[in-house]
Amino acid sequence: MTDEHDEPYLRVRLVCAYDGGSFRGFARNEGVRTVAGELEAHLSRVLRVPITVTGAGRTDKGVHAAGQVVSFDAPASRLEPRRLMRSLNSVLGPAISVRAVEVVAPEFDARFSARWRRYRYTILTDPAPDPFRAAYSWHLPITLDVDAMAVAATAVVGRHDFSSFCRRPPTSPGEAPASLERTVLDATWTRPAPGELRFEITAVAFCHQMVRSIVGTLVDVGRRRIAPDAIGSILAAGDRSAAGGLAPPEGLCLLEVGY
Amino acid sequence: MTDEHDEPYLRVRLVCAYDGGSFRGFARNEGVRTVAGELEAHLSRVLRVPITVTGAGRTDKGVHAAGQVVSFDAPASRLEPRRLMRSLNSVLGPAISVRAVEVVAPEFDARFSARWRRYRYTILTDPAPDPFRAAYSWHLPITLDVDAMAVAATAVVGRHDFSSFCRRPPTSPGEAPASLERTVLDATWTRPAPGELRFEITAVAFCHQMVRSIVGTLVDVGRRRIAPDAIGSILAAGDRSAAGGLAPPEGLCLLEVGY
Repeated sequence: MTDEHDEPYLRVRLVCAYDGGSFRGFARNEGVRTVAGELEAHLSRVLRVPITVTGAGRTDKGVHAAGQVVSFDAPASRLEPRRLMRSLNSVLGPAISVRAVEVVAPEFDARFSARWRRYRYTILTDPAPDPFRAAYSWHLPITLDVDAMAVAATAVVGRHDFSSFCRRPPTSPGEAPASLERTVLDATWTRPAPGELRFEITAVAFCHQMVRSIVGTLVDVGRRRIAPDAIGSILAAGDRSAAGGLAPPEGLCLLEVGY
Repeated sequence: MTDEHDEPYLRVRLVCAYDGGSFRGFARNEGVRTVAGELEAHLSRVLRVPITVTGAGRTDKGVHAAGQVVSFDAPASRLEPRRLMRSLNSVLGPAISVRAVEVVAPEFDARFSARWRRYRYTILTDPAPDPFRAAYSWHLPITLDVDAMAVAATAVVGRHDFSSFCRRPPTSPGEAPASLERTVLDATWTRPAPGELRFEITAVAFCHQMVRSIVGTLVDVGRRRIAPDAIGSILAAGDRSAAGGLAPPEGLCLLEVGY
């Protein structure tokens, strides 16, 4: 790739983890601290050219990532992946951790090459909060009907219009509204430890607030405010007001992206 | 116990965990947020009398606790342990979690009845930081000679004058300096997972900064700045300048107190 640049550039894939509580979301946003903004500022400084990154998942303010994938182009002559990873980890501070940096084929795009994304949502149900996990979980000290939640979760698997579970993006005048059809590959509740509930959901792609809205609705099933067999009719309604509450961002983590 | 109060009071034992990063240490200190200060403010409000707490370990600013034990006296007529625990957990916020509240014998004193205290220190050695554990560990992305650290750790076990590892408390004029003799019952390094080093130390009591000073010195052994067999002579020196560095507070946690 030399078409856009004076010297040859290489496509780079970077995997990172971050504490979402330290950022106003992933996407660059002038004047506020975002993950993409921090990465671009440090990459541009280290590589001495302006760098723009593309992320696999545009996580919201407060949402964490264990395996976010980012792609960008960098001048071949200045690119030493191992040294770049070391210098990023020494300047980014502990809120972002770079786990891998590698040169990939020029066709690779962190967003459009992704085949699936997997998110995890963590709920802690013990009466007392856990001070060491409060920033990474939703503390819900109530009894939840997990069997009902598990049954209800199966109804989101498959290809559906998720309008009831998504914040619709703004549409420009004259433009057709974006489709909110998405394919969910798997959605499962587990109990990894007493007092802990874990929801993992894998989809080809997600629309905005989809996981938090599904979790909030499934929790409403667990507290018997919504019937376990109502998910189908909530999907069919195509209306956000049909769904349950929105789970808070701190319990959510982008686990892994598949290519 | 009615001597100090108009109505009968009961001695209460409370076990709590806290995120030390949210407090300027355990001990009450006017004008700053401390664990004892928060507990006393909320206990006094809930029980509608001024409450003073005694803690088993006066953890420093930034040091965490998983099992701090606190004792205080409360009016028998207003004391319902389970309700008190619930109301404390609903008002204290996630940085302090109350794990147990129970009425104990009037002789019980969280500090003076304790037979031992156990602390844990966590070091993460992976090159990349862990954003979700950064607040609860010391990130040391270097190679450490853990065998040498384990050998050196055995030298602190037993009864010794720990003047070399303690910040000496101020002495009033004419007063004899406090003894810094302490009995360490156990001190062990383990590797609970790849890239993680854990130090656990149990002593009858600790003096100020003792665990962090021992850990800093053992890490200096691990990076071959101090010989593994030098701990005996450091103890014998009775001088802080003989010891190694001071490990940062965020890696330290008061695990458990034995009675």
